[in-house]
Amino acid sequence: MIAESGKLMERIRDFTEEQLIDIISSLVDYPEESVVPFGDDAAAFKLNREAIVLTTDMLVSSTDILPGMKLRHVGRKIVVMNYSDLAAKGAKPLYFLCSMGIPRETPIKDFKELIKGINETAKHYDSFFVGGDLNRSDELILSGTAIGTVKPEKAMKRRGAKPEDIVAVTGFFGYTGAAYKILMEEKRGKTIEVEEKIVEETFKPRARVKEGIILSESSAVTSCIDSSDGLAVSLHTLAKINGVGFKIDHVPIAREVTEYAAKHGLSPIDLALYGGEEYELVFTVKPEKWLELEEKMREERRKIYMIGVTTKKQGVYVKEREINLRMAWRHFR
Amino acid sequence: MIAESGKLMERIRDFTEEQLIDIISSLVDYPEESVVPFGDDAAAFKLNREAIVLTTDMLVSSTDILPGMKLRHVGRKIVVMNYSDLAAKGAKPLYFLCSMGIPRETPIKDFKELIKGINETAKHYDSFFVGGDLNRSDELILSGTAIGTVKPEKAMKRRGAKPEDIVAVTGFFGYTGAAYKILMEEKRGKTIEVEEKIVEETFKPRARVKEGIILSESSAVTSCIDSSDGLAVSLHTLAKINGVGFKIDHVPIAREVTEYAAKHGLSPIDLALYGGEEYELVFTVKPEKWLELEEKMREERRKIYMIGVTTKKQGVYVKEREINLRMAWRHFR
Repeated sequence: MIAESGKLMERIRDFTEEQLIDIISSLVDYPEESVVPFGDDAAAFKLNREAIVLTTDMLVSSTDILPGMKLRHVGRKIVVMNYSDLAAKGAKPLYFLCSMGIPRETPIKDFKELIKGINETAKHYDSFFVGGDLNRSDELILSGTAIGTVKPEKAMKRRGAKPEDIVAVTGFFGYTGAAYKILMEEKRGKTIEVEEKIVEETFKPRARVKEGIILSESSAVTSCIDSSDGLAVSLHTLAKINGVGFKIDHVPIAREVTEYAAKHGLSPIDLALYGGEEYELVFTVKPEKWLELEEKMREERRKIYMIGVTTKKQGVYVKEREINLRMAWRHFR
Repeated sequence: MIAESGKLMERIRDFTEEQLIDIISSLVDYPEESVVPFGDDAAAFKLNREAIVLTTDMLVSSTDILPGMKLRHVGRKIVVMNYSDLAAKGAKPLYFLCSMGIPRETPIKDFKELIKGINETAKHYDSFFVGGDLNRSDELILSGTAIGTVKPEKAMKRRGAKPEDIVAVTGFFGYTGAAYKILMEEKRGKTIEVEEKIVEETFKPRARVKEGIILSESSAVTSCIDSSDGLAVSLHTLAKINGVGFKIDHVPIAREVTEYAAKHGLSPIDLALYGGEEYELVFTVKPEKWLELEEKMREERRKIYMIGVTTKKQGVYVKEREINLRMAWRHFR
């Protein structure tokens, strides 16, 4: 379509999410008392002696719900998506709100399962589901908002990584990438038990809230982000913000994913890098603090995994191969 | 459709919003430290010496956007919808977040107008637009969350009205009801100027934030709600929660609405009672405090209007006629 100026009219679909966020940031007046900069996983502001941390994340059934996912899982997911952003700041969740757009034909039984999923997940993280809004919509749409707190000086940020810093993560990757192949591309049947485990793990994600709090209190972490857009995107984003590169030697891949990939002739590392919708933390650590941090995690029965090192040279290399951003970045989905 | 039990399967469409909220309330673990009870306009909790007030409200274009409304207006509306709920608690807005579901074909120019509308409205109320989330969706969906603060002992509640209390509102009603007739039922053309003014007022609503703060600080107000579901619903809800009735003698109707109604053979009082999407506050006041409160409002160049009195006898009567809840309550929209 030709606009009056003779120029092609630009539409949302022609922009990446990153470009749209840049447009927003150029139009918005951001408060100076901010604890973390605009465009971070969550917003954070001082309120008395605490920093209040705020984040919002929307789930649209046509793009975010895999076939077979039950409403109880969906309720869980909308909380986890939001709490993962709090975890990336090291914040403790306090309250959760959820606006819902619900199709009129939804059985009330399913609606109850949705509410139970939200409530039990908020409770699991010692927080409360405190408010919402009900609307009619053509497809199921949930918009969550999470409110948490962190000591202002302890809030983790996306910026701060230095060359030589260790790159680490809180868990294994690949479940969601493999589940997508199983459920959407129907690559299945060769390894039933393994496939069932992969789908189960994908339907029951958890946010690394406790890990985030330990990381932030350690003062060992120089930058942190969550992996909700996929490990490759998280690494790319973190490297770019910090003007550094990452040399990744080891990506923790779930055993079932390796097995599944072998049976179906898929690359396990690609499943781990480009999956998305996984809620691990990806962060950099001062090298001299690594052992102490690892020990602290062990004491709290949590785990972190060293995956590589921060480099002066830009770009993200996984086992010598540069990550393929064409696979990672999508145009506005 | 018959469920396995032989019983008709109950669906969302068979319930009112009120009934759905009751279902949620029966399934949710609500925190004890709450400053206002579950199901109020907003949630409020003590955080240090302040109460933090939280609310979320979703706008779905197919049901909430009138023909002719520009994206700048829509940006304004999603902020006002949420800030009106803060105003009903007497809270001062601090931060606004907005998750957006955006159709891929949206011109980027419109997207920018939307962001500008949100940002300038947040600024207008001395607050900040601090975060969001972008998603693709078939229709435009905005989910806003507002965060504000109020002194815990000053937060206004829905419950507290006593017989003899004065019933009052912050402004005129009827614009939205008339705009609906003009834009959706095409009842127009007889009073062009008046119709334009009605549509303009409807497209540019404001939240009664300043009024809410004055009301809450006065300690004269015994109960408060906003009128976003329409004056009739607000009065009914407030009466029911308090186990009282209201005798309404005077409903402030915008002059243009009276004129428009006369020309089109419509009932101005029905336009005012059943319109909805208007953001006035509806509240009850201790009778001995009324004059002082009115004076205080005048000093701040704000207005309140006495519309009736609280009665022991239940039911809401407007000029001797009981309000027609069939017109006010909708099944899940």
